Amino acid sequence: MSDFSKYSVTLDGSDIQKKRQEIKEYFNNTLDLYEKVFSLLKSDDIFYKKSELTRHPMIFYFGHTATFFVNKLINMKIIDERINSDFESIFAVGVDEMSWDDTESSNYIWPSVDEVREYRLKVKELVNDLIMNLPLSLPIKQDSDMWIILMGIEHERIHIETSLVLHRQMSIDDIKEVKEFKLCPHSDSAPKNEMIEVSASFVKLGVDETHNLYAWDNEYGVYEEEVAGFHVAKYLVSNGEFMEFVKDDGYETKEYWDDEGLKFLGISGAKYPEFWVKDAQIYKYRSLAKIIDMPLNWPVDVNALEAEAFCRYKSRKDGVTYSLPSEAEYRVLYEHVGLQDIPSFHESRANLNFYHYSSACPVNEFAFNDLYDVVGNVWQWSRTPIRAFKGFKVHPAYDDFSTPTFDDKHSLILGSSWASSGNLITKNSRYAFRKHFPQNAGFRYVISQSKDEHELDIYESDELVSQYCEFQYGEEFFGVKNFAIECAKIASRFSNNFTKALDLGCATGRTTYELAKSFDKVEGIDFSVRFVGVGSKLKEDGVIKFHTYNEGELFVNKTVNIKELGYENLKDNVSFWQGDACNLKPNFNSYDLVIATNLIDRLYNPRLFLDTIDQRLNKDGVLVLTSPYTWQESSTKKEFWLGGYKDEHGNEIKTIDSLKNLLSDKFELVHTQDLEFIIKETARKFQHTLSEVSVWRKK
Amino acid sequence: MSDFSKYSVTLDGSDIQKKRQEIKEYFNNTLDLYEKVFSLLKSDDIFYKKSELTRHPMIFYFGHTATFFVNKLINMKIIDERINSDFESIFAVGVDEMSWDDTESSNYIWPSVDEVREYRLKVKELVNDLIMNLPLSLPIKQDSDMWIILMGIEHERIHIETSLVLHRQMSIDDIKEVKEFKLCPHSDSAPKNEMIEVSASFVKLGVDETHNLYAWDNEYGVYEEEVAGFHVAKYLVSNGEFMEFVKDDGYETKEYWDDEGLKFLGISGAKYPEFWVKDAQIYKYRSLAKIIDMPLNWPVDVNALEAEAFCRYKSRKDGVTYSLPSEAEYRVLYEHVGLQDIPSFHESRANLNFYHYSSACPVNEFAFNDLYDVVGNVWQWSRTPIRAFKGFKVHPAYDDFSTPTFDDKHSLILGSSWASSGNLITKNSRYAFRKHFPQNAGFRYVISQSKDEHELDIYESDELVSQYCEFQYGEEFFGVKNFAIECAKIASRFSNNFTKALDLGCATGRTTYELAKSFDKVEGIDFSVRFVGVGSKLKEDGVIKFHTYNEGELFVNKTVNIKELGYENLKDNVSFWQGDACNLKPNFNSYDLVIATNLIDRLYNPRLFLDTIDQRLNKDGVLVLTSPYTWQESSTKKEFWLGGYKDEHGNEIKTIDSLKNLLSDKFELVHTQDLEFIIKETARKFQHTLSEVSVWRKK
Repeated sequence: MSDFSKYSVTLDGSDIQKKRQEIKEYFNNTLDLYEKVFSLLKSDDIFYKKSELTRHPMIFYFGHTATFFVNKLINMKIIDERINSDFESIFAVGVDEMSWDDTESSNYIWPSVDEVREYRLKVKELVNDLIMNLPLSLPIKQDSDMWIILMGIEHERIHIETSLVLHRQMSIDDIKEVKEFKLCPHSDSAPKNEMIEVSASFVKLGVDETHNLYAWDNEYGVYEEEVAGFHVAKYLVSNGEFMEFVKDDGYETKEYWDDEGLKFLGISGAKYPEFWVKDAQIYKYRSLAKIIDMPLNWPVDVNALEAEAFCRYKSRKDGVTYSLPSEAEYRVLYEHVGLQDIPSFHESRANLNFYHYSSACPVNEFAFNDLYDVVGNVWQWSRTPIRAFKGFKVHPAYDDFSTPTFDDKHSLILGSSWASSGNLITKNSRYAFRKHFPQNAGFRYVISQSKDEHELDIYESDELVSQYCEFQYGEEFFGVKNFAIECAKIASRFSNNFTKALDLGCATGRTTYELAKSFDKVEGIDFSVRFVGVGSKLKEDGVIKFHTYNEGELFVNKTVNIKELGYENLKDNVSFWQGDACNLKPNFNSYDLVIATNLIDRLYNPRLFLDTIDQRLNKDGVLVLTSPYTWQESSTKKEFWLGGYKDEHGNEIKTIDSLKNLLSDKFELVHTQDLEFIIKETARKFQHTLSEVSVWRKK
Repeated sequence: MSDFSKYSVTLDGSDIQKKRQEIKEYFNNTLDLYEKVFSLLKSDDIFYKKSELTRHPMIFYFGHTATFFVNKLINMKIIDERINSDFESIFAVGVDEMSWDDTESSNYIWPSVDEVREYRLKVKELVNDLIMNLPLSLPIKQDSDMWIILMGIEHERIHIETSLVLHRQMSIDDIKEVKEFKLCPHSDSAPKNEMIEVSASFVKLGVDETHNLYAWDNEYGVYEEEVAGFHVAKYLVSNGEFMEFVKDDGYETKEYWDDEGLKFLGISGAKYPEFWVKDAQIYKYRSLAKIIDMPLNWPVDVNALEAEAFCRYKSRKDGVTYSLPSEAEYRVLYEHVGLQDIPSFHESRANLNFYHYSSACPVNEFAFNDLYDVVGNVWQWSRTPIRAFKGFKVHPAYDDFSTPTFDDKHSLILGSSWASSGNLITKNSRYAFRKHFPQNAGFRYVISQSKDEHELDIYESDELVSQYCEFQYGEEFFGVKNFAIECAKIASRFSNNFTKALDLGCATGRTTYELAKSFDKVEGIDFSVRFVGVGSKLKEDGVIKFHTYNEGELFVNKTVNIKELGYENLKDNVSFWQGDACNLKPNFNSYDLVIATNLIDRLYNPRLFLDTIDQRLNKDGVLVLTSPYTWQESSTKKEFWLGGYKDEHGNEIKTIDSLKNLLSDKFELVHTQDLEFIIKETARKFQHTLSEVSVWRKK
C-alpha cells in the first residue's frame, strides 16, 4: 500500500488496541495529505481567493474539514467543549452549490491562515486523544462513537478529492508544483475506441450492517435489477476522441444539448472542456500545477452535460444510440472483469489512491481483462441520478449528507479517479453531483437496452420531512388550527417593528412565509438541510410534494403550490439557510423578531442559544419561544436541560422558571399562552401537543 | 472445567465459527444436564405428580424449558413456524407462584413423557441448526438473534437449579439415585461460628453493555453505595447451629417472626426446616435422593422468613443485633476475600457447578481467606428485596423476567449453590424469590450499621405500565372519554348473553372490571405479566400506584383504589391471566363475548388469533375488535400484516376489508364506529388516536 495515502480501516478485528492504532494512522495520514494539498497554494494570500465565484475562498475549505470533527462530536454529545466556536460556525457547511449555503465571503472576517493551522493542530490533538480513549468494541458500528471519527476522516477524504479540483481551477500563477504530486510523464496519440459485448446479469447493489468498511448512509439498503446485455466502450473517452466533437462544433450545435445543457452553455460560455486551455488555436491541457501539451490519450475531463452532448453527437454520427451507463450496468462491468473490492483489489493495478500519479494517465495503460480503467484514472459519469436504496435510513450524525441530493438532479459518478482514496475507491461507494459540476470526471459510453423508470418523489425516503410538510402545509384535525400560521400571528401581534424577522428552527418554512405578510424580510434557519430544502424549493420551484400515510405503508401524495398558498408576492422576501441555533454565524443579526417554535427542547445546549440571542435583536426587538418542554436525552444531555428535573436540594425545576431566570436581565416577559398542535402520523394516529408560547421584549 | 456442566460462553471473540461451536456445546450440555435431572424420577408416572400443591406437575417443567426456546424465537420473529402449538401453549409460563399462572392441572390433558421427549429432540435439532446458521457478529449483543438462544440456555440453567429443589421435595419413594449426582460423603459436628470484621467500602453494582457474559436485564445498570464497616459470620449457619433455634422452640416463639413469617407458619405448620425429617424425635436430613443422618456441619436449608427468625432469636440471646446481609454488604465480602468472577475464579475452589458434589458439604470445607463459602454450597438469603438498578431496561424478548419481582416482596439470594451453573454462578447475577419459597438456600448473618432506605414505587422502573395505568385509570383530556369504559359499554350493548367474557389484551385491566358490571365472570388476558399484574394487584391489594409525567423527569404519584372505582363487589368476578392471543391455552373458552382492544396490530401473527377465535365463543357470541391499524414491523412482520400494504397487483389492502374476508364465514359484521382515545405522555404531550370498533356476531 502507498505510504502517501492509506486504505480505510476495516471495522472488525479482535485487537482493540491495534484497531485504535490503525485508526490513528489513517486519521493522521488523512490530515497530512489534506494539508499537503493546500501546500499547492503559492502563498498564504492565495487562501483568500476563490476557484470560482460561487465557491468559498480556499481558507474556508482549509478550516472546514477540521471544524467538521468538532461540530459532529458536539452534536453527537461525544464532547461538550468547543475548541473555537467562531471557527466552528464560519467554517461549518459548504460543499455543493446550494442556496442555503452562504458563500458571500463579504459577510465574514476570515482568520489568518496561521490561526487556522493552529486550530487544525488542536483538532488533531483532540481527535488523536479520542481515538485512543473513546469506548470501543469491535466491529465498529454506525452507533459507535468511533464511527463519528471515521465519518470525519472520510469526509476529509472527499475534500481531498474535491479540493484538488478547486486547486486545478485556480489561476496557474497561484499554484506551485509540489514534489509529492507527480504528473504522469507519458502521453501519446489516442487509441481507437471499440465496443465490447457484456452479457445480461442480475445485480444487487447496496451493503448491509455486516459490511466491514465505513459506508455513507446512501450505500446501505438493497437495490436489485435484471440488467439486459449491453455494449460498452473499451476505453474512457480520451481527449483525442472528444476533440472530434469539439472540432465538429459540438458546443455550438444546440440539438446535442438538453435544456439544462443549454443553460450551462449560456451561463458558462463553454466552447471546450474546463481543463483545456486554448492558446493561439492550439488546445493545451491544464494539469494540477502545470499547463502541458494536450495528452491525447488521457481521458477528457467533462461534466455530465458535456458527456451527454457527446453521446448525442456520436449517436447521430454512427446511427446507434449511445448513452452513459446506468448505475446497475456499471456494476455489471465490475463483475464482467472479475474485479474485487478494496482491499483485495490492490491499488497498484489502477490509477487511484495517488499510487502512481497525481494526474490522469493514458486510457490504455490500466487493463482489466478486455476493458480499461474500470476503476481509477477519472470518474465516469452515469445516467442514473442518485436515489435511496430500499431500506435507506439517514445517519443521525449527518442527516443531510444524502437526502438533499435525492432530487433527480444529482448524477452518480462511478469508479473513482487518481485523486480518490478512502471510501471513494470502494466498490459500493456512491457519490453524485449536479450535472454541470466539474470533477476529476470523464465518461465511457454504452449501447444500452435498459429503460430507466422512476417516479419522482423527493421525500419518499424522508418520512420525517414528509410528516412535517403535512404538519405545516396539510390538513387540520380535531378542530386545532394550523400551528405555523397561529405562531406567526402571535409573533406579529407582539412585534414593534417589521423590518427583518428570523424564524429559527423553521423546519419546512411555513412560519417563515407567514411572517413575510408582516415583515419586509424573513430569514428561516434550520439545523437540517432536509428541512430548509422544502421552504427553499417552494420559493424556487413554486411547488412541494410530499406524502401522508393512511394505514401501514399506504399513503397519498400531496402537492402544495405557492399560488394557492398566496405566497407568490412574498417569496422574494424570504430566504432559507442551514444553521446551528447554538452556534449561529455572525451575519444573522439585526432582527425585530426572532421566533423559535418547538426548538429549545431539541437543542444540544439551549443556554448557548438563549445567552446571546439578545445581541441579534434590534432595540424593542421581540423573542417568541414555543415549546412543549419535552426534554429527552437523545436531543439534550440531562445536564443541559432547562427544566424537568430536580436540583441537588430536591426542588422541581420547571422550564418556564429557568427561562425567566435566564432571560429576565435582558428581556421583559410580556405574554404567555398555551397553543395546541397536531402532527399526523397516520389517518388514525396523531401527536396532540400543548405548546407554551412565551413572548419576550428586549429591554 | 467440569465436563458435567460447562461455563457460560463469553460474548466476545474473533472467530465466529469457534463461537458457534462453543455455544453449541454449551447448549447441548445444558439440555443433557436438564434431562439427567429428570432421570431422578423413578418412572414416567411420577412426571404427573407435583412436588407441592401450588406447583405444576413435573411434566410441565420437563416440557417448559424446550417450549421457551420456540416461544421466544417466534415472538422475536427469528422463526415463523411453531413445532407444536399445543405444547407451546400448555407448557408456556410458570415459575413463581403468581396468581396469573394457571397451575390447575385438571384444566389440561398432559401429553405422554415420550411425546415430550420427542418434542425436546425436535427443539434440540432446531436450535442446533440455528446456532450454526443465524447471522452472528462478535461480540454478541442484546439485540442479536443469538442472544435469544443464550437466553433460552440460561433459562434452562435456572430450571436445572429449581427443578432439583422440586425433586428434593418429591416423596423419597418417587426418586431414584443417579450416579452422576454424587452426595458429599463426609460430615461431622458443627464448627463454632465466629464474627469477622469487614472494613467500610464503596461498592458499585451492575454491569454495562460491554460486559462479556450473558446477563439478565436486572443485572444491567448502576447502583452505588458507601457501605459502612460491619461484622460477618465466618461460616454459613450450619444444621448444628440452627438446631439450637429449633430446640429452643424457635418455631413456636411468636416474637421471632414478623407478620409474613407468622402467616407462613400458619399455612405450612412448619416446626423445623423443610428438608429435615423428624424420625422418632431424631432429626434426619433429606438430600436429593436419600434420607441420611443429620450432617451437622452442612449448611441448613431455610427460607428467608426462617433465616430472619433465627437472627431475631440470636440477637436476643447475644444482646447484639444480627441481620441478613444487604446486597451491597455481600459485594463487600467479595472484595474482602479478593474473589474473582467466573471464569477467572475456578469452580474447583467452591461447591458449585456440580464440580464436587450434588449436595451441600461442610461449611468449613471451602475457605476464602478468613471466610468460608463466600460462593457455593447453598445460596445465602439477603435482607435486600430485588430492585431495578439505575438505567434498568426490560429486555424485549422477556419483558416479565424481572419487573414482576420488583415489588419489595422478593428477596435476593446471593452466592449460588452446589446446583448452580451458567449465569447463576457469575458475580453479577441477581436472583430473588418470595421469602417463604424454599431453595437450595441458607444464610450467613451480619452485624450491620447500614440503614436501608427505599421509597416503594412498583412502577418506577416500568414507565410503559405507568403510562397505561394513566390511560386506563387516569384523567380525561381534550374532552375525549375514558376509552376502556367506552369499549366495555359498546361491547355490553351488543352482547346477547352475559355469562362469561374474555378481555384479550386487557393491559392494566380496566375494561375487564367494567365488563364485570354486565357479565357474571370476566377473564382478562395479556401477553405481558407486567400488565396483568396491575389488574391482579387491584383485585388482591385493593389499590394500585403509578406515576404520570409532567415535564422531563418530573412526575406526580397517583393512587387508585378499588372502592373509589366501585369495583369492590365485582372483584371476585374478574381474574387475570398471562397468555398469548396467537396461541391461547385450551381452557380459555365458552365465552359470550371476546373483546380485543388495540390488540390485532400488535400481534406477531393476527391470523392465528382470528382463524380460531370463533371456537372459543358460545352460540350468539360476540367478538369486538378495536384498532387504529397502526401496523409496524417491530410488532408484526410485514408478511403478516392484515392491511396497510399493496398486493402483488398493486391494489391497496385495507385492514377492515381483510377482517371482513377472514371473519365473514363465521361472523356477521353488525356494527362499526370510530372511537377516540388519548394516551398522556407528559402534561403537554399526548397520543391522540382514532380507533375503529367493529362488532361481529357469531353465525
